[in-house]
Amino acid sequence: MTTPDTFARLDVVVQDVTGRDGFQNVAPWIPTEVKLELLRGIAGARVPWLEVTSFVHPKWVPQLRDAEDVCAGLAADLGVAPGAPRPVLSALVPNARGVARAAGRGIDAVSLTISASEAHARANLNRGRAELLDAAGDAIAAAREAGLQMRGGVATAFGCPIQGDVPLADLAWVVGRYAELGLRVIRLGDTTGMAHPRQVREAVTALRAEHPFVTFVLHLHDTRGMGIANAVAGVEAGLRHLDAALGGLGGCPFAPGASGNVDLIDLVHAAEEIGWRTGIDLDALIALGRRLPDLTGLQADSRVLVAGKRNDLAGRDALREDGSVAAQLRG
Amino acid sequence: MTTPDTFARLDVVVQDVTGRDGFQNVAPWIPTEVKLELLRGIAGARVPWLEVTSFVHPKWVPQLRDAEDVCAGLAADLGVAPGAPRPVLSALVPNARGVARAAGRGIDAVSLTISASEAHARANLNRGRAELLDAAGDAIAAAREAGLQMRGGVATAFGCPIQGDVPLADLAWVVGRYAELGLRVIRLGDTTGMAHPRQVREAVTALRAEHPFVTFVLHLHDTRGMGIANAVAGVEAGLRHLDAALGGLGGCPFAPGASGNVDLIDLVHAAEEIGWRTGIDLDALIALGRRLPDLTGLQADSRVLVAGKRNDLAGRDALREDGSVAAQLRG
Repeated sequence: MTTPDTFARLDVVVQDVTGRDGFQNVAPWIPTEVKLELLRGIAGARVPWLEVTSFVHPKWVPQLRDAEDVCAGLAADLGVAPGAPRPVLSALVPNARGVARAAGRGIDAVSLTISASEAHARANLNRGRAELLDAAGDAIAAAREAGLQMRGGVATAFGCPIQGDVPLADLAWVVGRYAELGLRVIRLGDTTGMAHPRQVREAVTALRAEHPFVTFVLHLHDTRGMGIANAVAGVEAGLRHLDAALGGLGGCPFAPGASGNVDLIDLVHAAEEIGWRTGIDLDALIALGRRLPDLTGLQADSRVLVAGKRNDLAGRDALREDGSVAAQLRG
Repeated sequence: MTTPDTFARLDVVVQDVTGRDGFQNVAPWIPTEVKLELLRGIAGARVPWLEVTSFVHPKWVPQLRDAEDVCAGLAADLGVAPGAPRPVLSALVPNARGVARAAGRGIDAVSLTISASEAHARANLNRGRAELLDAAGDAIAAAREAGLQMRGGVATAFGCPIQGDVPLADLAWVVGRYAELGLRVIRLGDTTGMAHPRQVREAVTALRAEHPFVTFVLHLHDTRGMGIANAVAGVEAGLRHLDAALGGLGGCPFAPGASGNVDLIDLVHAAEEIGWRTGIDLDALIALGRRLPDLTGLQADSRVLVAGKRNDLAGRDALREDGSVAAQLRG
């Protein structure tokens, strides 16, 4: 497993959520072997943390009904070269039952999710945030017993599609309750892509000041084009852990064409260009991303996949024909 | 015309380049009337500055061979409500001949472009930057005589597809020469989308410190997904003027599918969410953007056009069916 020492050598810890958030809303079945091929490719590209599946009831997320098989497949072959650091593997769980399903399958960590928006929590589950947090204690105890790290996730942390704005105080309240429950890794989820950079900066700055021993993770969607800008704002405000999904998978089924998670390739490319070491083999990710449509039938929403890396130089000949600049300069 | 007082009420001056950079590489002919309809729509949405065409030789940019007709059409009807502020209109010119063509057509400003990259300048024009800057004096004099504001544009300001990195010193050298020539508005062009936020921040900070009386404009492409992040970095570093194009038009013809300019709609949406007043009617822009494919046959590359604005709430019913969050929360 990747050790804290491995993470210490990274400036930014990019966490892949393709196996969970990326796939969970995809209607056509993605065969377990295809999921495994993608996850092994991501692990093989030295992504240090993977959320690989979700132990929710298959009724709610039929696409992830193979959670046990995915874990078994990764336990048999993680796609990591011999001697290379092993990534942390995590899974989403809704409650103690989910923890029980996740235990003993080679998973290192599990995550809970509670909405910062009261309206959102009630609309989805007919239960308020306080009640959900009370129930979280059982799951946390189960995880402790099973030797699984428990992470606290906050959905609609930066905005809610029902109530609109989510006050920072509401986000801070859920984070505070998680911290009281003993959680030391807390994920701030921009579930429907409503965050903007000033908001991220202010929230991360305030939460880090209040919880200096908590590791915050930023889970961003690029729904309105601010995904990378929000990631930059978050890192500049001091956090280091960023979620992303290969090809930007994970869009909402009710906004066809709307982008999902921040694209893993674009995020790693941006981080490395800025000078933040990710430890990730970007070329391997790009090669994997090119195969995404053939493997899954899903289109990748990745700028770098189309345009190439910043320093993939066009060369003099291509440029001579390129009207985009030449045209400006000529008479 | 929009007065300096109008601009003073804006936090960010968003400048539309659809008519120039957006159209210049489009191969199928866009009828002049369609161009005018789009430009009038943009002006009518209170975008305060429009670069509407280019007075380069039609041999190089056949799509903009109707530059005179576009100017005449806008002079006849700019699409601005009676009494509303009139936007600044500008055009690109390659030299003094271009200035002569632009004069007397209702255009307020013209822009020159010189590459920061010596390799790029030589590859395109077989002339170095110093020689091009020497020749710029004639165009500047012609503009002064014609009563046109002259702006200095720097292409490949943050990276060059031939030579790769462009040292800040090279960018600063061109900017310094422009300033010596008396120009007070200088555009920093990320021509092929190679900038990253740390680079933008450092360059803008350094250039503003050296030239406190110059208005800097940031011209960004979203080629590798960092367009909005770069815009945020530039504004945070103190500049206020940002270029954009409707639907993100303006991609390079040699990277099919690669995105072009930063999308006008996404940029205005982001700025307004952050709290930077643009003075622009975003809803009018969105309505115009929806018509772009029908009007031009071109696809809009705009996240907000697909997903809606941040606060277009989905409502409780839509959410109940939305697996993207509910699935995480249920057992």
